[in-house]
Amino acid sequence: MFNIAILGMGVVGGGVYEVLKNNAADISKKLGGNGETLVTVKHVLDRRSFEGHDLASIVTTDFQKILDDKSVSVVVETMGGAHPAFDFSKAALESGKSVVTSNKEVVAKYGDILLETAKRNNVCYLYEASVGGGIPVISPLLNCLTANKIERIAGILNGTTNYILTKMLFEGEAFDTALKSAQALGYAEADPTADVAGLDALRKICILGGIAFGKHIPTEKAAICEGITEIDKKDIAAASKAGYSVKLLGVAEKVEDKAYLMVAPHLVKNGTQIASTVDVFNAVSVKGNMVGELVFYGAGAGSLPTASAVVSDILSAIKCPVPETPRENCGDGFCLEAKEMPVKIYFRTDAPAGELCGEIIELGDGERAVITEVATYGSHCAALDALKAKNYKILARHFVLK
Amino acid sequence: MFNIAILGMGVVGGGVYEVLKNNAADISKKLGGNGETLVTVKHVLDRRSFEGHDLASIVTTDFQKILDDKSVSVVVETMGGAHPAFDFSKAALESGKSVVTSNKEVVAKYGDILLETAKRNNVCYLYEASVGGGIPVISPLLNCLTANKIERIAGILNGTTNYILTKMLFEGEAFDTALKSAQALGYAEADPTADVAGLDALRKICILGGIAFGKHIPTEKAAICEGITEIDKKDIAAASKAGYSVKLLGVAEKVEDKAYLMVAPHLVKNGTQIASTVDVFNAVSVKGNMVGELVFYGAGAGSLPTASAVVSDILSAIKCPVPETPRENCGDGFCLEAKEMPVKIYFRTDAPAGELCGEIIELGDGERAVITEVATYGSHCAALDALKAKNYKILARHFVLK
Repeated sequence: MFNIAILGMGVVGGGVYEVLKNNAADISKKLGGNGETLVTVKHVLDRRSFEGHDLASIVTTDFQKILDDKSVSVVVETMGGAHPAFDFSKAALESGKSVVTSNKEVVAKYGDILLETAKRNNVCYLYEASVGGGIPVISPLLNCLTANKIERIAGILNGTTNYILTKMLFEGEAFDTALKSAQALGYAEADPTADVAGLDALRKICILGGIAFGKHIPTEKAAICEGITEIDKKDIAAASKAGYSVKLLGVAEKVEDKAYLMVAPHLVKNGTQIASTVDVFNAVSVKGNMVGELVFYGAGAGSLPTASAVVSDILSAIKCPVPETPRENCGDGFCLEAKEMPVKIYFRTDAPAGELCGEIIELGDGERAVITEVATYGSHCAALDALKAKNYKILARHFVLK
Repeated sequence: MFNIAILGMGVVGGGVYEVLKNNAADISKKLGGNGETLVTVKHVLDRRSFEGHDLASIVTTDFQKILDDKSVSVVVETMGGAHPAFDFSKAALESGKSVVTSNKEVVAKYGDILLETAKRNNVCYLYEASVGGGIPVISPLLNCLTANKIERIAGILNGTTNYILTKMLFEGEAFDTALKSAQALGYAEADPTADVAGLDALRKICILGGIAFGKHIPTEKAAICEGITEIDKKDIAAASKAGYSVKLLGVAEKVEDKAYLMVAPHLVKNGTQIASTVDVFNAVSVKGNMVGELVFYGAGAGSLPTASAVVSDILSAIKCPVPETPRENCGDGFCLEAKEMPVKIYFRTDAPAGELCGEIIELGDGERAVITEVATYGSHCAALDALKAKNYKILARHFVLK
């Protein structure tokens, strides 16, 4: 019998409770039992009372009570927000309890501290659910690709923005209209800033890049964070004409002994697994020097898929609590600045073809789009500045997945 | 310092040797070292002499020598074939060495015995490389989806046949021509029977289905094993017209407390991750009752990708040798017979539309194709027999991925 506590009974916390209840017999067998319930939710930390619900008797607002309960071996942190989620997680690890989280903000900000605290106390800090919802990507990176140097990770890491871009592509909607339909369906929050401005994806690519490159990489070290608010229907159409889809990607690429991390709209070649990822789904491409390109696809959010990852982590913490090796902060100098990134870009301009270098897509009305070769972002910017100096307009600029 | 032995220095064994050499510094760090070589190949079992190669001094034809060497903790079995690979693996496990394999024939036939032997001796039998080459799919199934009941696995599990089907689709080649080009490129063996007849994919779907459903499922229990030799260009074109691609799939589906396993050509809806998987790539779709559909994509064969999976398993065996829980043989009664499978089928006929039920695709020349609704395969067969009794021809019959 294993007792756990859930901090925060929201969408994900509620899903965890449901998964444990629905699949109790199967979970029991995976822990060596015979179908009896082996994982019990003993405490729920939440401000609400849950009157009339079977949670009413176990809900508390007193975290200390959970901390003091020696029978609780795993604490599930599904609160969201940096504080007090971080503080509670740290305290739980220090009291010898493993912590399982879906909170990307805490992992991105304080993952280094929490992994170190876990290691020192010989317990686990597990965070598969913080990236890609139910898609197993963190565990494969940590455990299945150990024979590889990871060269690049590029992924659709935010379902809300992918849904909006899908509507813009297939139904020709403008950004504002597509956002409203995402909100009506509950895919986007009333305040969608963290999603549409790219911050959610940025946290996730920093978590993945950190694992891939063996460092803790704070979001402040990323070279670029652009969202989808400035994407014009014209560019989606131009990309389509050239055989590409526009996707908001988080990219982390190794460049010799350094790396760059970014979130920005990218043109992605149609027919690839990433371009084929539509609606609210996520997909993460991982390139290893031995295995080549792998892609992990699935539901990147939602109550039950995310809870699926949390519950698997709970079972891992129970079955074989081997602490992960902590990663040091990358410090200064590891992450390239934007101008140093070797990238391909896309831009739309009114400059005539003779002034342009790369693959040119004629758009009519005196406009054309260009897909460049790979060069440093700094040199691309210089080329665009040179066009502007000749009084040509740069009407849009995005990236192209290499 | 960890000593290993490699049984069989062929394509995969050679890849393992190369990965260990190329990525020695990174592998060292993952084992807590500082970049020094920590994993040493101490013995190679092979009939060839490797004169002049740096392997010459460690190659042997005497397996007993490896078995007796107490300093060897992991044996890598990349021999291929059922015997003596099985016998050597069993002996190694019994002498307290973990075994890592890429040999799907041994895993499919004797996985139950070898997992039980490993458990009894408190060592590991690891076989990630036996399915999907470098794609992590076995470890995610075992470790990351423990919160789910797995409802279905469907995958492109053989790169050779997927390459041939890709050529038939995009270049309109007939089967024989496409096979010859696969052979010229080294993708298909001189004797391609195991690939094109579906046996290779069958072994792999039985391994995956076994893990998903918690049983050892011998290939003899599969309901159907059809290859790609009978696929007509006409059906690829008809499928394309209806928005589908033809793929050779391994399918393992739970039906209440039973299951069916099969390998056969399937029509797969275009735009999905499976349909977008072309050339020699593999992709495995896994449906869990909580997480929904996940897809794992990558290189399903090849020296270095497969070696990537083998070497990751070697590191797992060294770092945390927790034996997997063995699975009992499914026995009789667990696997449905072909006629009981709930499936959608595709067929091509000269019967007039008025005789047909389902989505009808007019093909000209008096022929049409039909995509049916879901029903038992037995009832589909009865419907086709009824058409034949009326002297209509059934010109082709395939399955449709639900």
